[in-house]
Amino acid sequence: MEKITPAQTEPLKIVVINTSKTTRPYDAEFSDHQNTRSSTLRIGLLQAGYDIIASLPGDMYLIERIAQLDPDLIIIDAESDARDVLEHLVIISQHAPRPIVLFTEDDEPVHMRRALEAGVSAYVVAGLQSERVKPVLEVAMARFELDQQVRSELQDTRNRLAERKLIDKAKGILMQRYSLSEDVAYQRMRKQAMEKNLRLGELAKRILDAVDLIG
Amino acid sequence: MEKITPAQTEPLKIVVINTSKTTRPYDAEFSDHQNTRSSTLRIGLLQAGYDIIASLPGDMYLIERIAQLDPDLIIIDAESDARDVLEHLVIISQHAPRPIVLFTEDDEPVHMRRALEAGVSAYVVAGLQSERVKPVLEVAMARFELDQQVRSELQDTRNRLAERKLIDKAKGILMQRYSLSEDVAYQRMRKQAMEKNLRLGELAKRILDAVDLIG
Repeated sequence: MEKITPAQTEPLKIVVINTSKTTRPYDAEFSDHQNTRSSTLRIGLLQAGYDIIASLPGDMYLIERIAQLDPDLIIIDAESDARDVLEHLVIISQHAPRPIVLFTEDDEPVHMRRALEAGVSAYVVAGLQSERVKPVLEVAMARFELDQQVRSELQDTRNRLAERKLIDKAKGILMQRYSLSEDVAYQRMRKQAMEKNLRLGELAKRILDAVDLIG
Repeated sequence: MEKITPAQTEPLKIVVINTSKTTRPYDAEFSDHQNTRSSTLRIGLLQAGYDIIASLPGDMYLIERIAQLDPDLIIIDAESDARDVLEHLVIISQHAPRPIVLFTEDDEPVHMRRALEAGVSAYVVAGLQSERVKPVLEVAMARFELDQQVRSELQDTRNRLAERKLIDKAKGILMQRYSLSEDVAYQRMRKQAMEKNLRLGELAKRILDAVDLIG
């Protein structure tokens, strides 16, 4: 789950997802333009010392392929709206969140918001110049780490609140069932948790499960 | 506290902070370069229909001036490290968080991280082209809103946890003091809270304060 930025000696493994390839019918002029974009991006990544381990279309195999490749960072090269790819990435990010950089020409605010909500660390409009690729990726990684910190703090606080509710509920049941004072009920739970080598919240959950089963 | 993006008809009020002006001795070549940067930024903002209500140096009066001007968005135009200005902005953001966009040539990852931690919504390296100003600001605003959502959710969850702890503590005191069962103590607190038109957590805090005062 935890992704650590590798040391400088080990280049970052990058997957580039190209959405345009799959969504447009063949068009020579567009294809040239697209090739220029792709090569600008590749030059920037090579200059920055990154390792492009794969270049993938944004199709139905994307989720599986990214799971196999396990990149350190994902770049989406999307001329226009990247909606389909983003929907895949939401699923991918639930299991293993990673920094995602989106280069696009799409400056529609609604699409920006949707992309950020889907977990995009950097949404870069019309900013694909090879010399800018490195700082954009570095800002995206710093942003990603900061986001993960806040989100894990939120998750942690939510867990503590949920745990406290379980503990209170289990304690109340013990108090009623065995006519214990609050303090004695709490001490009994602490003792049981220690004996079973469980967190107090886990013990409380087991007590509630047991009551649910045998009443 | 709450900042709502104004409707399209009312232009966004923007303050530009120029760090370089204050930190470098006079240097003709640098000054030219700086003027080019400034005008690029101004052109971009005007084209995008934004309203620059002030252009400020990053000095000791910054905090006060921004409080007076109350802009919708802050842009820092920092050729190099913007450390001093960021320290001011941390203070400003505690009271009234706003989207902050930093345009810089500084690509040092440590500085990036520090800036994002200080509340910068967009850290843009070497990306100051007038036609990019609008999408950069729009992404920054979307990012800011998303960050605020997550942070307010975190604050809310923390408050609920803290409140629950206070309620439990106050309940325990009532139980012991008046030999009440948990349920009766809880009902008494709920009744008092309703009578005094307080949240249960606030009532619990008053009970604890009272015990602290008169034992």
